Amino acid sequence: MKYGIVAFPSKPIQDEINSYRKRYDSHYALIPPHLTLKEEFEADDKKIDELITELKHIANDTEPITININKVSTFAPVTNTLYLKVEPKQELYDLSDKMHTDKFPGSRTYSFVPHITIAQKLSDDEYSDIYGSISMKDIQLEDTIDRFNLVYQLENGIWTVYETFVFGKEYV
Amino acid sequence: MKYGIVAFPSKPIQDEINSYRKRYDSHYALIPPHLTLKEEFEADDKKIDELITELKHIANDTEPITININKVSTFAPVTNTLYLKVEPKQELYDLSDKMHTDKFPGSRTYSFVPHITIAQKLSDDEYSDIYGSISMKDIQLEDTIDRFNLVYQLENGIWTVYETFVFGKEYV
Repeated sequence: MKYGIVAFPSKPIQDEINSYRKRYDSHYALIPPHLTLKEEFEADDKKIDELITELKHIANDTEPITININKVSTFAPVTNTLYLKVEPKQELYDLSDKMHTDKFPGSRTYSFVPHITIAQKLSDDEYSDIYGSISMKDIQLEDTIDRFNLVYQLENGIWTVYETFVFGKEYV
Repeated sequence: MKYGIVAFPSKPIQDEINSYRKRYDSHYALIPPHLTLKEEFEADDKKIDELITELKHIANDTEPITININKVSTFAPVTNTLYLKVEPKQELYDLSDKMHTDKFPGSRTYSFVPHITIAQKLSDDEYSDIYGSISMKDIQLEDTIDRFNLVYQLENGIWTVYETFVFGKEYV
């Protein structure tokens, strides 16, 4: 089964981000706005049970993280993807790194860039137009990440949350 | 904020149910296939923190529940909604009842009928056509519910999972 690990921002932030995604993000209906901590990976039922134990340990050892977004950035020319850049913070890198030890299947395709995608799979013309207009907007968002979610993908492409892991001494 | 409490079936069951929902359910893109334990209700941040404590207690005291689906049924003439009937099981009623004590905001609009919606907001003609064809299908599904989810609704109508509550002595 195909899994991933993401953090959803709070509702007001999701609503604002969706106002951009609605028009430009082909994944708009597949998953709410999210910061990906670990890209999709394959795991069977036995493996995922082991990983869940590990994810509980990680969540227990993590404090809530304040995130700040101040600009739109791009993965072009690698892909015509626009994203809200989450300001680099060591805690985010540490959190994502803990999900990329050899206990976990799946390795990084690219180095970790904390971000929330707002537009993807754009043609070159669309990309230029949209980047031009959206990069002029004054975007200033602050939020607190206090949990992450293990999600799996259905056959129709939509992601379902399998389990939420709240930071702090939550789990036995 | 608008919250609800639902249980998602396992992935293979969700995939099968989505094959029906895709064509007939206007909420197909808003939330994966689900069994609603508590209909939408309003709660502020303070109240939801209290409810989460209560939901942990409820989850701790609940054992996994096997569910069986053997037929399509309907809420007509109240609404033109078709659903997979989840065979009545006392544990499901008990679970839902615990979310309708006076500790919780929101009361039942209808008495609790365990079900997974596959078609809704149909015109009378659509309803007759679809019910006719779908009720002839031989639907036999079995699954195990071992968690429920507190979800909230975004402005675009899509539901995001706020927290998952796994049954058993999971939470401190």
